[in-house]
Amino acid sequence: MSTEHVPAALDVPALRRALDGDHHAVRDEVRALLSRPEFDRSDVAGLDRDAYRDRVLDWTRRVARTGATMRGYPPEVGGGGDVAGFIAGFETFAFGDLSLLVKIGVQFGLWGGAIQNLGNAGQRQEYLPQIGSLDLPGCFAMTERGHGSDVQALRTTATYDPVTAEFVIDTPDDQASKDWIGNAARHGREAVVFAQLVVGGETHGVHALIVPIRDEETDEALPGIRIEDCGDKLGLQGVDNGRLWFHGVRVPRTALLDRFGAVDAEGVYSSPIESSGRRFFTMLGTLVQGRISVGGAAVSASKSALTIAIRHGLDRRQFEDPEGGEVALMDYLGHQRRLLPLLATSYALSFAQQDTVAALDAIVRAGDDEDVEQQRRELEPRAAGLKAIATWHGTQTIQECREACGGAGYLRDSGFAALKADTDVFTTFEGDNTVLLQLVGKTLLTGFRDDFGNLSPLGTAGFVAGQVLDVIVERTAVRQVLGALSDVLPRREDEERGLERADQLELLREREEHLVSRVAQRLRAGVKEGRDPFEVFSYCQPHLLAAARSHVDRFVLESFALRVEREEDVGTQAILDRLCDLHALRTIEKERAWYLEHGRLSGGRAKEITRRVDRLCHVLRPHAAGLVDAFGIPDEVLCSRIGGREVDGERW
Amino acid sequence: MSTEHVPAALDVPALRRALDGDHHAVRDEVRALLSRPEFDRSDVAGLDRDAYRDRVLDWTRRVARTGATMRGYPPEVGGGGDVAGFIAGFETFAFGDLSLLVKIGVQFGLWGGAIQNLGNAGQRQEYLPQIGSLDLPGCFAMTERGHGSDVQALRTTATYDPVTAEFVIDTPDDQASKDWIGNAARHGREAVVFAQLVVGGETHGVHALIVPIRDEETDEALPGIRIEDCGDKLGLQGVDNGRLWFHGVRVPRTALLDRFGAVDAEGVYSSPIESSGRRFFTMLGTLVQGRISVGGAAVSASKSALTIAIRHGLDRRQFEDPEGGEVALMDYLGHQRRLLPLLATSYALSFAQQDTVAALDAIVRAGDDEDVEQQRRELEPRAAGLKAIATWHGTQTIQECREACGGAGYLRDSGFAALKADTDVFTTFEGDNTVLLQLVGKTLLTGFRDDFGNLSPLGTAGFVAGQVLDVIVERTAVRQVLGALSDVLPRREDEERGLERADQLELLREREEHLVSRVAQRLRAGVKEGRDPFEVFSYCQPHLLAAARSHVDRFVLESFALRVEREEDVGTQAILDRLCDLHALRTIEKERAWYLEHGRLSGGRAKEITRRVDRLCHVLRPHAAGLVDAFGIPDEVLCSRIGGREVDGERW
Repeated sequence: MSTEHVPAALDVPALRRALDGDHHAVRDEVRALLSRPEFDRSDVAGLDRDAYRDRVLDWTRRVARTGATMRGYPPEVGGGGDVAGFIAGFETFAFGDLSLLVKIGVQFGLWGGAIQNLGNAGQRQEYLPQIGSLDLPGCFAMTERGHGSDVQALRTTATYDPVTAEFVIDTPDDQASKDWIGNAARHGREAVVFAQLVVGGETHGVHALIVPIRDEETDEALPGIRIEDCGDKLGLQGVDNGRLWFHGVRVPRTALLDRFGAVDAEGVYSSPIESSGRRFFTMLGTLVQGRISVGGAAVSASKSALTIAIRHGLDRRQFEDPEGGEVALMDYLGHQRRLLPLLATSYALSFAQQDTVAALDAIVRAGDDEDVEQQRRELEPRAAGLKAIATWHGTQTIQECREACGGAGYLRDSGFAALKADTDVFTTFEGDNTVLLQLVGKTLLTGFRDDFGNLSPLGTAGFVAGQVLDVIVERTAVRQVLGALSDVLPRREDEERGLERADQLELLREREEHLVSRVAQRLRAGVKEGRDPFEVFSYCQPHLLAAARSHVDRFVLESFALRVEREEDVGTQAILDRLCDLHALRTIEKERAWYLEHGRLSGGRAKEITRRVDRLCHVLRPHAAGLVDAFGIPDEVLCSRIGGREVDGERW
Repeated sequence: MSTEHVPAALDVPALRRALDGDHHAVRDEVRALLSRPEFDRSDVAGLDRDAYRDRVLDWTRRVARTGATMRGYPPEVGGGGDVAGFIAGFETFAFGDLSLLVKIGVQFGLWGGAIQNLGNAGQRQEYLPQIGSLDLPGCFAMTERGHGSDVQALRTTATYDPVTAEFVIDTPDDQASKDWIGNAARHGREAVVFAQLVVGGETHGVHALIVPIRDEETDEALPGIRIEDCGDKLGLQGVDNGRLWFHGVRVPRTALLDRFGAVDAEGVYSSPIESSGRRFFTMLGTLVQGRISVGGAAVSASKSALTIAIRHGLDRRQFEDPEGGEVALMDYLGHQRRLLPLLATSYALSFAQQDTVAALDAIVRAGDDEDVEQQRRELEPRAAGLKAIATWHGTQTIQECREACGGAGYLRDSGFAALKADTDVFTTFEGDNTVLLQLVGKTLLTGFRDDFGNLSPLGTAGFVAGQVLDVIVERTAVRQVLGALSDVLPRREDEERGLERADQLELLREREEHLVSRVAQRLRAGVKEGRDPFEVFSYCQPHLLAAARSHVDRFVLESFALRVEREEDVGTQAILDRLCDLHALRTIEKERAWYLEHGRLSGGRAKEITRRVDRLCHVLRPHAAGLVDAFGIPDEVLCSRIGGREVDGERW
């Protein structure tokens, strides 16, 4: 790695093309749309809750009128058959008002997505055009008050009544009420309701049904349905989250979304998937698009924050410089260290996101073909892990950027008030990050063999007693012996260990392999000692979470490294290469204690990594302005007094 | 350290007495006051900005009527002469509405404090009673738009006119306008204005003057004064921050706060402090009380967040347990790891805060005695460093706690919306944390010899060329040789190195000494190589900030360790001892990469620290409820739907 190979001037349009990827035209459409005066959001903080919600509904209608909201749906219902394009648009909407973003996600992604993924051809034909046009606003009613993350345990029931050929939906108690349901409090007329399906006294696990909830004329809840507003939130006040209770609500047999489980006219249940566990996870798998979308939105939000903070850091001068002038904040290594590694990681996550979206798109295009099953299983933990890491990156980046702007960042017109408040829930909705990482960890242990997504930790601890851990432990035994040795004897070769791309990748891979095999060993040892399975699991949980993180770190770097190799423009490749170095070395630097503890890096080498990160900050500093310009966030959309390209009429 | 020595049951009142310290009566008074219905704050988020500001003014009047607001002022003006008591009360107000807290800080701490610390006896007599009663609301007008952190460079002028024996106050341009001034936008009638004092054409540096700004009858700005509202902020909407411009505003000669610099009737300037640099830093030293107060408030806010999150974690059950029931979130080691080390650090910071407040109190009581000068110089970096570390701890803890509460934490009634938004500015006001740590770092280098508080990095880089670095380098040379050796040869004794209290302290001390001496060496080397001083400084800045952090880490642990030793109740001592272990070992764990890189810990020992932190979380888990009960935050004051002692009518 030569830190010097950076072009003197940045080709910002080329860099932007790299970031925008295949769907640059979609992104530009959204940029143009959001730049129009009717999408101005400078006054929304002053609106009361209902007015803000209505504004968001109006914006969503305007978006629907462009037709872009049908982009992800199948061609046979008039859609674009382009999930990747839909997500690219969604990511771009995340540069603007985030209540609008979430409303789009709720209506077209969740409500529409559930019908797209769980419904049959007739249901898709009947519903998707009305949903895409926003003629039929609806809800995705999965989460219950008592079970935010443990969907398999949800307790709403849909009991089949063979006499009338109807399902009867019931909320057994308050803990089973549906909570946090977007569109429920005000605008939604129907809902996809997730419930335990009971047919002939037998429970077949969680299924989804379409249930009308609100009268179109009167806006009142329909009989048997109780609706409550979730009330004021920390942010996203323009989204009408609500709670739902069902008491003996009857829907026809055909209301069941029956792609993965149907009840025929004779009242007989059948499913193409035999195992009820696997069926459940296949259905949950339809959440994957939501998770990928949220992860992408978090990356976009991190770009808004970095755009503001880096431009402010270039504009704001403090203290004298040797010539008697003043020094830009961005000229301090401390300030560069705060912002530039986060910038590099936003680039890294953008490319990992592109690859993940492409994988989803390929699966959706393939339809029900047998051979996408394996790809689907591989995508799910990837989506879960990337969502967790991307949303934490968003939260951390926005906070660091707010502080880097000092008092100016604390004024509402800087944009940070909305950015902070609206994104804060990203880390805990669409799957709590900790729970998601736990799922990733479990998948790593089972080698994708088991059904992905068993949310119960005991499900994890339980299988500890099985054979699978023995296989993992054996598989990695050779490496372990080497690892154990290196713990005792500092490996001389570490001193010469390079820090080039191949070495960066190898370091991340080693860490992942070691963490996964060690946690398997620990789980197995705990069970063999006869300890309580929950205790064994709880004791290993932090280790399992670290393993999951290391897995995400690895594939994010792989995506970025591959993207650098593929870049054809020499200058753009050089700058991406340096950003990739900064991202990789900063990732390793943060985890260097682990590498030192396990003899994978010597003390001298670890210090060298710190020096290289410093050096890369210094090398990239002159390009800071161009690196955020390449995010391509129009001033009107960014809506920040201190973050626009033109500040005080001056351009640096 | 035996992790087992914890009493079966916690004596919560005894623990609370330890936390409340000498001023427990003051704290209880504030708890009782804030619990009264008229201080209910559950509706403030719904108020518009002006109504909220007026509510806060009304609350502040009620507080003033208790007389508590005079507690910190000297007895000769009718005050309590009890600065420590005033701050203890202030810290307790931080459990309630934070706009009220900041208003109290602005009026009684900053506006009153400036007159108390910079004024003469007559000025104190004239002003403090009216300020303490809130009959005269006023401002502390220091910060300028162009110079948030570099006060020495501020550009407002106060030019003496010998003809009329008046000072003429002028704002030369917009960059010199006063910004962020609390009480300015709405309620303040006078202001302490910091300006460059010009007498007979000679500039004597920054001084403070009392300047009327607003007409009592009309509420209009007085002639020559322009006032602008800062407008909407990210939080603290109940505080009326504003901007001020002065154009030829005339005040009498006696408006100068002349404790450290006076102009006599003949128009001759004199000061008890010869060096204008030292004079400036002595005046700035009066900011120390504000910084200590903000640090204490941040610790209180972290306690509010932990109270909510830990109670929620005990209440909220997820997934099944082996007996078929469900497991409390707090039973997961991952959840304990998230919250309990932060809890231990909130305890640690409470005791460090108590010691810091006691030191300030002693200095204020001593008055102008010569021998408090050294104590004052030692207190200032301590206050600056503790403020930085405590406010970052607050921000981090509140965020972690919000996420640990999932969706429930995102509802406004959880309390996190206000906690997050209102505390967010703590890290950048009353001295930006990075700038403050830089000051601490510089003081460590100079050994308190130089004037504390030179905010210019070039001031730091400049002195690099001086003799002082040679002394530091020499002073630590012996240790360096040992350190260098241990970098090469892993020290066998590290394997046996204990992790008891003495070892914990030694580890933190070693780190501080090493970092300070190394940064001195690096600065010296940079200058000897003839490099540009700013570049040398910038290059070493992250290192200097790390040194400053390590200094704070060390004295915080020392405070806690001493407090554990002094505790007379055996059971309370045992629990504090474990909390102190958890805080100390977590601090070392976070920095273990450094210890490994420098051969101060072996890989095996570092891993042992991680195991001990896990074990301590497990040991303290059964006491989690009592440990937050001991913070003593009444439900009415905490104002959180999910954080009260009584949730759903049940007590765990």
